[in-house]
Amino acid sequence: MKYNENFLRLSENYLFSEVKRRVEGYKNPPRKILSLGVGDVRLPLSKASIEKMQKGVEDMARAQTFRGYPPAFGYPILQESLKSYYKRFSAFLDEEEFFISDGAKREIVDLLDLFPAGSVAMIPDPTYPVYKDANLLRGNRILYKKGTLANGFLPMPSGEEVDFIYLCNPGNPTGATYTREQLKVWVDYAISQNAVLFYDNAYERFLDEKSTHSIYEIEGAKDCAIEIGSFSKMAGFTGIRLGWTIVPKRMEMLHVLWKRRQAMGQNGVSYISQMAGVGALSKNGLREMEERIAYYTGNRRTIANCMQKLGWWHLQGGAYVWAKCLNGSSSWEFFDALLEKAQIVCTPGVGFGESGEGYIRLSALGEKREVEEACKRLEATAW
Amino acid sequence: MKYNENFLRLSENYLFSEVKRRVEGYKNPPRKILSLGVGDVRLPLSKASIEKMQKGVEDMARAQTFRGYPPAFGYPILQESLKSYYKRFSAFLDEEEFFISDGAKREIVDLLDLFPAGSVAMIPDPTYPVYKDANLLRGNRILYKKGTLANGFLPMPSGEEVDFIYLCNPGNPTGATYTREQLKVWVDYAISQNAVLFYDNAYERFLDEKSTHSIYEIEGAKDCAIEIGSFSKMAGFTGIRLGWTIVPKRMEMLHVLWKRRQAMGQNGVSYISQMAGVGALSKNGLREMEERIAYYTGNRRTIANCMQKLGWWHLQGGAYVWAKCLNGSSSWEFFDALLEKAQIVCTPGVGFGESGEGYIRLSALGEKREVEEACKRLEATAW
Repeated sequence: MKYNENFLRLSENYLFSEVKRRVEGYKNPPRKILSLGVGDVRLPLSKASIEKMQKGVEDMARAQTFRGYPPAFGYPILQESLKSYYKRFSAFLDEEEFFISDGAKREIVDLLDLFPAGSVAMIPDPTYPVYKDANLLRGNRILYKKGTLANGFLPMPSGEEVDFIYLCNPGNPTGATYTREQLKVWVDYAISQNAVLFYDNAYERFLDEKSTHSIYEIEGAKDCAIEIGSFSKMAGFTGIRLGWTIVPKRMEMLHVLWKRRQAMGQNGVSYISQMAGVGALSKNGLREMEERIAYYTGNRRTIANCMQKLGWWHLQGGAYVWAKCLNGSSSWEFFDALLEKAQIVCTPGVGFGESGEGYIRLSALGEKREVEEACKRLEATAW
Repeated sequence: MKYNENFLRLSENYLFSEVKRRVEGYKNPPRKILSLGVGDVRLPLSKASIEKMQKGVEDMARAQTFRGYPPAFGYPILQESLKSYYKRFSAFLDEEEFFISDGAKREIVDLLDLFPAGSVAMIPDPTYPVYKDANLLRGNRILYKKGTLANGFLPMPSGEEVDFIYLCNPGNPTGATYTREQLKVWVDYAISQNAVLFYDNAYERFLDEKSTHSIYEIEGAKDCAIEIGSFSKMAGFTGIRLGWTIVPKRMEMLHVLWKRRQAMGQNGVSYISQMAGVGALSKNGLREMEERIAYYTGNRRTIANCMQKLGWWHLQGGAYVWAKCLNGSSSWEFFDALLEKAQIVCTPGVGFGESGEGYIRLSALGEKREVEEACKRLEATAW
């Protein structure tokens, strides 16, 4: 039996299992271990989403309202809700340009089906590891754009020949956020290369009002950009599994091929999950979302203020604070130092790529009291 | 921009859109048009599933019971339920051999990621069109095994060199069902070829007790077979999106690679959908399932009895009756005849492959009263 040899190109990502191993191996800590390493959400779902799901479950219990196979590209009511949501930031799209998904991760992999193996992908480093894995699996070449102190972890293109480009904005793990002007440079570059810009917008809701909330706010983006959205972080849907992908009609062939790919390769997304999304985007849902996001961005500011007081170099944005390790420590050395000196768990930056070495990621997705307590400890420790 | 040229190999499947076009184009029918073409379920979900979903929604509304990212391969409680379910037909598997999915269609495509492009797939004809499309998309070669009157639409292997084999048992669209002895021949053949046997078990619940309910009842299957299961037809979950894939540990490398593929390429399945599955497999859920299945198999027998009375050559099994068109008509000619003479919609067999030409598929998934009325009409019509 022959296997897909591209699997040999994937290096096992031991990041979170190694974090777990070290935390569990730390015997008899002098006080409770607190985590700033959380990557998952923890606040319960909004009332608006819960009520829509309750209604959705009821619909499934009665013959008159029962729903079978969902539309392959999503329920129109959810596509319309997303269209209205995007209007808020002057990104004007048609309902049919929103393809409902069960989450961003799967879409990042499946979108590569539209292109031939051997394509060249430009990927920032450090970043969400799935971009890299998906491209290795599909037999593509990768060109890394390094984030550094000098560029503030916001690398810019410099004329390289590529087939597609990945941007996560605000960034995971760095929180670094491109300005509108920088995004315009990326869009122009994609067009000049006849390349596709994959714009991962999973942390959009954590941006302040003046920021750029969709790549389609940028002129030219409808000719080159595919935006990947997710309810996971914005509405706490990590366990509900709901997202969307925008493939503009102006991208013609890609719009047609993606329809083809989705019609042949999946049977749509759970009715109840889609109703939860409709709830999240309703007037009440958006108000509740704002409260939850304020809770998390409050945590982020607490952590950033703590870094400020300690004088640690750091960035903040999205759901994360990105900090430089002290005294030239490696990510894992500093991870151990935080654990042993302050009984605090972080995420080693090197787990997100080579250029993350020497940094750590601190997450704002934890519980407020725990975040505050962790920050007090960090400030009280001699480093 | 270069595109994946394998898309050019896919021929657009117009089957259901063409059915719709012809039905809508039939102006002023003398009586209500009845459908024996339904491919979706219509009975509401069982109380057992509904209650579990209601509980699941509640869990998401409270911080103490909130669930974030699901385990990548499924919630252990659902894996355990499936393990117990399989024990009923003496298929003994470990929990970790069940990979929870959001439905069979996606798995059929994703499983091909484990193999190199250019693999050779043996696919029955006629069959579920996704096997073909998935292999064309992945750049594989296809070897069709023709179903005929002579072999009762149960083709058997004859020493061809292949990398994988697809069986849907009971078959879609034919309902034809292999015996245990025939399945043993397929398993032995797969092993002799060092090939993977993809066993699509979506219609398992429609089988009578004595039939083979899992490929793992057959000796040797754990060394060569991947079974794809689905709650869609057995529990009416087409709108819930839930299934499972079994990759036995004895297949070693494939078990490891599939874990790898699923960990990197998706973030698990909706908590609420998985709870619905736990409900469906509970004692009460299984009892309710039996009632629903009896409703559909009752429909199937009604249709088969009608064919018997009319003297039409037919097969019945799973959720379908497969009938030969009269007077050498093509599938679409006979579709038109049924529509115009009896105001009944069927599904043309040719939509499932070349060897389906000259046949039609009649579905048992419709409403009982409508099925009975349709059969009366068929019997009262001069053919």
